[in-house]
Amino acid sequence: MYKIGIIGDGYTAAELVRIIAGHEDLQTVAVTSTDNIGKGLAEVYPHLRAFTDLKCEATDVEVLKRRCDAVFLALPHGLSVPLVKELAGAGVRCVDLGADFRLKDSRIYEEYYELVHPAPEMLDQAVYGLPEIYREQIKNTQVVANPGCYPTSAILPLVPLLAAGLIEPRGIIVDSKSGVSGAGKALKAGSHFCEVNEGFRAYGIGNHRHGPEIAQELGFAAGVPVDMVFTPHLVPMNRGILSTCYCQLRDGATPGQVREALEAKYAGEFFVDVLPENIFPHTKWVYGSNLVQIGIHVDQACGRVILVSALDNLCKGASGQAVQNLNLMLGIEESKALRFAGIHP
Amino acid sequence: MYKIGIIGDGYTAAELVRIIAGHEDLQTVAVTSTDNIGKGLAEVYPHLRAFTDLKCEATDVEVLKRRCDAVFLALPHGLSVPLVKELAGAGVRCVDLGADFRLKDSRIYEEYYELVHPAPEMLDQAVYGLPEIYREQIKNTQVVANPGCYPTSAILPLVPLLAAGLIEPRGIIVDSKSGVSGAGKALKAGSHFCEVNEGFRAYGIGNHRHGPEIAQELGFAAGVPVDMVFTPHLVPMNRGILSTCYCQLRDGATPGQVREALEAKYAGEFFVDVLPENIFPHTKWVYGSNLVQIGIHVDQACGRVILVSALDNLCKGASGQAVQNLNLMLGIEESKALRFAGIHP
Amino acid sequence: MYKIGIIGDGYTAAELVRIIAGHEDLQTVAVTSTDNIGKGLAEVYPHLRAFTDLKCEATDVEVLKRRCDAVFLALPHGLSVPLVKELAGAGVRCVDLGADFRLKDSRIYEEYYELVHPAPEMLDQAVYGLPEIYREQIKNTQVVANPGCYPTSAILPLVPLLAAGLIEPRGIIVDSKSGVSGAGKALKAGSHFCEVNEGFRAYGIGNHRHGPEIAQELGFAAGVPVDMVFTPHLVPMNRGILSTCYCQLRDGATPGQVREALEAKYAGEFFVDVLPENIFPHTKWVYGSNLVQIGIHVDQACGRVILVSALDNLCKGASGQAVQNLNLMLGIEESKALRFAGIHP
Amino acid sequence: MYKIGIIGDGYTAAELVRIIAGHEDLQTVAVTSTDNIGKGLAEVYPHLRAFTDLKCEATDVEVLKRRCDAVFLALPHGLSVPLVKELAGAGVRCVDLGADFRLKDSRIYEEYYELVHPAPEMLDQAVYGLPEIYREQIKNTQVVANPGCYPTSAILPLVPLLAAGLIEPRGIIVDSKSGVSGAGKALKAGSHFCEVNEGFRAYGIGNHRHGPEIAQELGFAAGVPVDMVFTPHLVPMNRGILSTCYCQLRDGATPGQVREALEAKYAGEFFVDVLPENIFPHTKWVYGSNLVQIGIHVDQACGRVILVSALDNLCKGASGQAVQNLNLMLGIEESKALRFAGIHP
Repeated sequence: MYKIGIIGDGYTAAELVRIIAGHEDLQTVAVTSTDNIGKGLAEVYPHLRAFTDLKCEATDVEVLKRRCDAVFLALPHGLSVPLVKELAGAGVRCVDLGADFRLKDSRIYEEYYELVHPAPEMLDQAVYGLPEIYREQIKNTQVVANPGCYPTSAILPLVPLLAAGLIEPRGIIVDSKSGVSGAGKALKAGSHFCEVNEGFRAYGIGNHRHGPEIAQELGFAAGVPVDMVFTPHLVPMNRGILSTCYCQLRDGATPGQVREALEAKYAGEFFVDVLPENIFPHTKWVYGSNLVQIGIHVDQACGRVILVSALDNLCKGASGQAVQNLNLMLGIEESKALRFAGIHP
Repeated sequence: MYKIGIIGDGYTAAELVRIIAGHEDLQTVAVTSTDNIGKGLAEVYPHLRAFTDLKCEATDVEVLKRRCDAVFLALPHGLSVPLVKELAGAGVRCVDLGADFRLKDSRIYEEYYELVHPAPEMLDQAVYGLPEIYREQIKNTQVVANPGCYPTSAILPLVPLLAAGLIEPRGIIVDSKSGVSGAGKALKAGSHFCEVNEGFRAYGIGNHRHGPEIAQELGFAAGVPVDMVFTPHLVPMNRGILSTCYCQLRDGATPGQVREALEAKYAGEFFVDVLPENIFPHTKWVYGSNLVQIGIHVDQACGRVILVSALDNLCKGASGQAVQNLNLMLGIEESKALRFAGIHP
Repeated sequence: MYKIGIIGDGYTAAELVRIIAGHEDLQTVAVTSTDNIGKGLAEVYPHLRAFTDLKCEATDVEVLKRRCDAVFLALPHGLSVPLVKELAGAGVRCVDLGADFRLKDSRIYEEYYELVHPAPEMLDQAVYGLPEIYREQIKNTQVVANPGCYPTSAILPLVPLLAAGLIEPRGIIVDSKSGVSGAGKALKAGSHFCEVNEGFRAYGIGNHRHGPEIAQELGFAAGVPVDMVFTPHLVPMNRGILSTCYCQLRDGATPGQVREALEAKYAGEFFVDVLPENIFPHTKWVYGSNLVQIGIHVDQACGRVILVSALDNLCKGASGQAVQNLNLMLGIEESKALRFAGIHP
Repeated sequence: MYKIGIIGDGYTAAELVRIIAGHEDLQTVAVTSTDNIGKGLAEVYPHLRAFTDLKCEATDVEVLKRRCDAVFLALPHGLSVPLVKELAGAGVRCVDLGADFRLKDSRIYEEYYELVHPAPEMLDQAVYGLPEIYREQIKNTQVVANPGCYPTSAILPLVPLLAAGLIEPRGIIVDSKSGVSGAGKALKAGSHFCEVNEGFRAYGIGNHRHGPEIAQELGFAAGVPVDMVFTPHLVPMNRGILSTCYCQLRDGATPGQVREALEAKYAGEFFVDVLPENIFPHTKWVYGSNLVQIGIHVDQACGRVILVSALDNLCKGASGQAVQNLNLMLGIEESKALRFAGIHP
């Protein structure tokens, strides 16, 4: 039984506790907080009343080093680096759900996060935690940078096509739509029920921080920098991301090759489900699960490829993927505690 | 491994498949349908794509007898009786999620369901499937009448108080509010998104079929017929029931006794959670779980007792409770496959 | 053209501006604010972009006295009294949408609002602004205490029956359900989208401030203090209140008399609609309008009367009613600018 | 006072009645139906109880000719043509909210609607009812083809840029998101509350009927056929459309020119609101109103232009625009009865 610490008490932390409650090999031994120190975690999250007696505690890295085999960090950007440095140095596995280790180029991090990266030398050691793409590296690392929710939804459908040279690395459009939990538990006007419910809007046009993260991974797959635009939107629902990705078939490539490339890539993957022809995903079909669904449309006449993906932003888009990564890091079966079906309706 | 058949392919059937997918001792071997015969169950419910290869088949009682150790019936009222008669006669355990075996008095059934009961002699054999109240009888029966969703939410808080003689059996008001999945998957004006979303209404005032079911069980507990009014309302959400129950403290009874009676009754019950003072349940706290939460308020001055209960109508209010019942019938640990936390947010 | 000031810039203020934009005899000349001073009102509420050029200004009572014929106060409790004193003293008509002038007994105010009332002597001058009940007094007052949203929904159906002696003044239960805009625009955990959406809960059980307000008006109608319990609930929707009111028929009173009393009382009222037999209101049917709908159910056997009412909490429950009151105070046709239909769907 | 007939009793018909109820020069004298003949319109739509006594009647073209000065047709495609032929022939103004007169090329109509057009010769007479583009023609026609909701949202932002030669007529992407009322009142699985709520999905990928309608109007503006892809999505809300349009700046064109072209085009238009820099529309800001909001983002480095538009699909996207058109046809002030603010929250 591995002992697990969770740093942070936001929605992704609560989702980690939910998942770990059903995991035979992991046990949550500490949850740390800033605002709720001393409070029972089940007071903060009453849906966990039957599942945890833990009290939120202050983040004490020495204590965590002693008590934990692995730690999930679920913190605002900028706060993870010193903690990871200490913990990983002491042999504790770290899965960082924040953004601090995702971008390999610290200048891009600094541009988008308006922060000097405190340990750029660590960026090379951290592995980008998309198991379907970096499985072997994840098994052998001490530090995983868990991907952003939007990037997971965009990278999984696009990377196999770029890697196979089937689509152009230019003119890619990722039009994404997310439920509100992606904005976290903090109080802000944009998460007020009355400002969200019965409405739909775009935000972060042209400058959302997940843009460069997507571009980085697409570029790695393409072997060249890609030209890509990412536009997120807010959907009046709690959970779910749907990304509609537009790209252009390369000269000579066929619609059949697109489907084959995706099906071949994900044939053995439990969590990635390439849907049959003419079936496109619905976020409801993955609600509360660790699954990603991908639908494919190619218009041969004009060569346009439309890929639609859906996932649960808190599960495969955050905490579920984080547990999947830790399973790999600890040599546990990758899908352990993650093979639950979603909730419908 | 017990082989399970599910008769019907509505929302409660899908929820049964979801739960059984995580149950080590049960295996769904058949799902029957009227509208979707020959279709993959995962075509009808794509959230189950990774979890079932079953095709919907016609209901053939001979086949079910041969292939199933137990059967869940999730049918409109009036259709279960002949099937249960045959199946139970052949030694197949039956959990009927419909209403046909819930009311012990066939005249009340006939009044409310406008149907002559086809086998009133079977009503005595069927056990009302509330494990927290009829556990021992459930263990020893062949046929369980799984309670209605509203009744479960009203009976659990009120029965211990009536049984202990702490509240008056007169003037009880059960004001209940349910999500839309309680109305099922069938297309009707009242379930059209635009007719439900951004609105709230009462329905079935004075004549809802769950009224006599609640009254029956309250009367059994009180030892006398109760005077009770039940008013259901429709909430613009998928899942969840909250019942606000008003009743009158008996002369001489104290607020402390009310709390003690409920806490004592449910002390050892995993699925019933009596909340601390001044905490009242939220349907979100039980979303997707098999839990019931109960909050208590007593105004000593006027002797009014307010009990608020919350559950997930498809889980503890239907399919979760049905699996709980079958676990008992088969000698499996009662909470097996049901100890999952709900989804929040 | 009367010149109107609005003190406060919350949701009810925005609703006032919306309504007054369609009013030929009123013109909004000032909106005051604490947080948004200097900002365009249409920046704060972009749905008003085409309808106002006003900038939010600081509340300066001298300026308001000079510029306004009438003022709406939409402030947290405790803040209105000194302003109303000054403004009314200077001949400016005041409609206070807050709670400071609603309760005639300052001790009850002090108990529920935890505040010593700064001018109890003014309570007698202020008229409780329910036009259907206090029309003549409203026409002749300088200060109207605009009723709470919940109280409007409970008082309108119950008062005629208490006044006619048709129902018992004891054992009245008002089980109310409100959309989230009733909690205002301020950021709080209870209004966070993810904490509200897909859930339903009760709150303020036994101590909500609208309880004594309802009791006061019911008591005035009954001629004796009433025994009444009020339980509010939160519905995941923006607008709308539905109240389910339970009471007991007096000995000798008949169901027909109940209907007749309500129909007679509201026969000439444009904004109160007593629905036909077996039709019960839906908050969607009054969404965005100034209407109240009332449905009636009487169970003669047990003498129980159920009244269901629906209104839009921001319109008839606040700003629409406020304009209705001001129309009366200024001698304008009462329904002016308020005869718009609601939005459906 | 012009006498108005409405053929059809779906959501757009109800919205017409709502709007006309506030119109001093129009009076609804007939609403026709298939399913609700003989029923009061207010029984079908109780939000109209205070506003209409009309009963739904069968569609009798002779009666309509006699009684009506103008008729709105709100019918499924294929049904309007013979009615319009008769009515227009008799001098009755017709505004068709359906699709039968929108496409100028009957072969495209036949391909997408799978129906031989019954009167292709009439297509030239009908004017495409976008007042901001075809105002003069609308004033002088007998027959208006009221635009689709999605097309209105896409054409208004894109046409001025294509007409000015500022963007490429190739590679245009219109990624649109609509509330559920766009799918109408008919019962279908895709409009069941539980299948929509808490979910988001794309539909009609590559073959939605509004695609060629958008392409037609963009092509007219560009002077050449455009290459455009249109992808609609379903948002869990009642009303609202948001379209995110991606296109490419022409060589030599500047971001400033894009903004200037749109601002100049819509400077005098009450219903089209070009938002300031860095402000992007929210469907909530136009909820229940006849307004369209347009936000502009241009990335000069890569030449990508993103236009975001929002409207209420039942109002500016259907019935509001229809009344705007009829105002023009009848020589009434264009914005009459349409200058109401939307509802927020």
